[in-house]
Amino acid sequence: MRITVCCSDTKVAPWVEGLQAALPEAEVSEWKPGAPPADYAMVWSPPQAFCDDQQQLKGIFNTGAGVDALLKLKLPPDAVVVRLDDAGMSVQMAEFVCHAVIRHFRELDAYERDEAQAKWGFRKPKLRADFPVGVMGLGVLGQRVAQAVASFEFPVRGWSRSPKQVEGVECFSGDEGFRQFLAGTRILVCLLPLTEDTRGIMNRATLSQLLPQAYVINVARGAHLVEDDLLALLDEGHLAGAALDVFRTEPLPPEHRFWTHPKVTVTPHTSARTLREESIAQIARKMRAFSRGEPIAGVVDRKKGY
Amino acid sequence: MRITVCCSDTKVAPWVEGLQAALPEAEVSEWKPGAPPADYAMVWSPPQAFCDDQQQLKGIFNTGAGVDALLKLKLPPDAVVVRLDDAGMSVQMAEFVCHAVIRHFRELDAYERDEAQAKWGFRKPKLRADFPVGVMGLGVLGQRVAQAVASFEFPVRGWSRSPKQVEGVECFSGDEGFRQFLAGTRILVCLLPLTEDTRGIMNRATLSQLLPQAYVINVARGAHLVEDDLLALLDEGHLAGAALDVFRTEPLPPEHRFWTHPKVTVTPHTSARTLREESIAQIARKMRAFSRGEPIAGVVDRKKGY
Repeated sequence: MRITVCCSDTKVAPWVEGLQAALPEAEVSEWKPGAPPADYAMVWSPPQAFCDDQQQLKGIFNTGAGVDALLKLKLPPDAVVVRLDDAGMSVQMAEFVCHAVIRHFRELDAYERDEAQAKWGFRKPKLRADFPVGVMGLGVLGQRVAQAVASFEFPVRGWSRSPKQVEGVECFSGDEGFRQFLAGTRILVCLLPLTEDTRGIMNRATLSQLLPQAYVINVARGAHLVEDDLLALLDEGHLAGAALDVFRTEPLPPEHRFWTHPKVTVTPHTSARTLREESIAQIARKMRAFSRGEPIAGVVDRKKGY
Repeated sequence: MRITVCCSDTKVAPWVEGLQAALPEAEVSEWKPGAPPADYAMVWSPPQAFCDDQQQLKGIFNTGAGVDALLKLKLPPDAVVVRLDDAGMSVQMAEFVCHAVIRHFRELDAYERDEAQAKWGFRKPKLRADFPVGVMGLGVLGQRVAQAVASFEFPVRGWSRSPKQVEGVECFSGDEGFRQFLAGTRILVCLLPLTEDTRGIMNRATLSQLLPQAYVINVARGAHLVEDDLLALLDEGHLAGAALDVFRTEPLPPEHRFWTHPKVTVTPHTSARTLREESIAQIARKMRAFSRGEPIAGVVDRKKGY
């Protein structure tokens, strides 16, 4: 089996060496224009030239869970697109979201401001029942996050396009379910894939339906959120705050209002990072299974977009 | 059954009314000097005069988990002392400690400082395996906290005076076990009861045995920690930081170095607050069971101190 590796934004060599070590029976090399045709590819944000050059590919294995950037390309016609399932990302996502939920619920930002003034003052504890958490997107990451939040005894709701059942989570689906989901959610967590259906899904019309003083946590893609709508609802007081890890433009431009808005916490797309070793191990397993004709998890439906 | 209620630092009336509603068969009233003798008492930090006045008490039910302040009094000779078991406190403790662990592990304080400068910059993810979390005290609260931290895939260790087994937690006990426990711990969480054995248990000798760059989370009692020893080890660089919710003197005096130390996070004894409704319901259940001669949880061994 011949494998080509094309990763932008990162050093390619450790990925090539790692995959070669995991698949000694294969020939693994870095893609360069005019490289010999390969059977499979391991990629992160490859350029269009890569696809044009490797039209014969049978499988493209993405080193991340989100394939929105990849599906924007004109891909080789027969290539099955496979995304990363978990590879240590779901636990990172769970801890990042739980941290944000707890920090908001327990007013730990406010306590930190008190600390800066050496002020010892209690805040009346709030009731968990008043802070239902709603998770949009119930894939591997969304389910793990929903259950982690539920372990802290928050009421947890979930929404997905097609009906799902997750233990300990009240599940909603489809367009009708979306209204009910929003109307009972106080802390909204976005873990959706980015598709034509979900682009801009957090906008004035939808965010207005959340419970008063709602809080928004976006750890999916910047394009899920209409940024000006969020800012307006924060300033109007319907929303209490937001923790945003992803943005329409990344890096977030220095002049963007999010940086300085007192109700917005900004982190630099760091909620769940690809862990190289785990990712390579998973992709190697899948390439082997796929080449034997065995079923593998994470095969992307190109029409649905995830 | 006649019940007297004596709570300092808080309004007594809602406690009296709440307990009366939960136990309509009893006579519940607020304690005042010279009040008629009662069978049971519900208390929080009562004065010595209360004990002197109510020598006939058969049971004293504390509205908190920690009974160190209560046991400093000369108590009525026959009174069984009963502490609060959980009553909504363990979930608060779990979320508070998980927040502190995640915030430290994921360097979210540093990201927040970056945000203040509109700086978009990644930090290399750390390995969970390098951050073993050690929980001292494996009672109801300690077990819940240890398991909550373990759910985020940190290696978790526990230490208690007598041997215990907690699923998913590597348990140590006694003096010999304490050395091993400390030597493999990077994030130390204190949830011990305050007794003569545990007073000052976090001091230069013990904290020096932690892994380099250790982090200390104290959510038990201020007197567990020798504050100057912690400050010295922070300044010498052996410790990376501390999240402290309890202090030798509370409120923490405005001039205390903890307020301004860049490696110390201060919160005002807020990690787990007594929730009135849950506490009253639990105490009412226990009073009823105790008066029928049934066994109840949370009976304090006055000699051990918890």
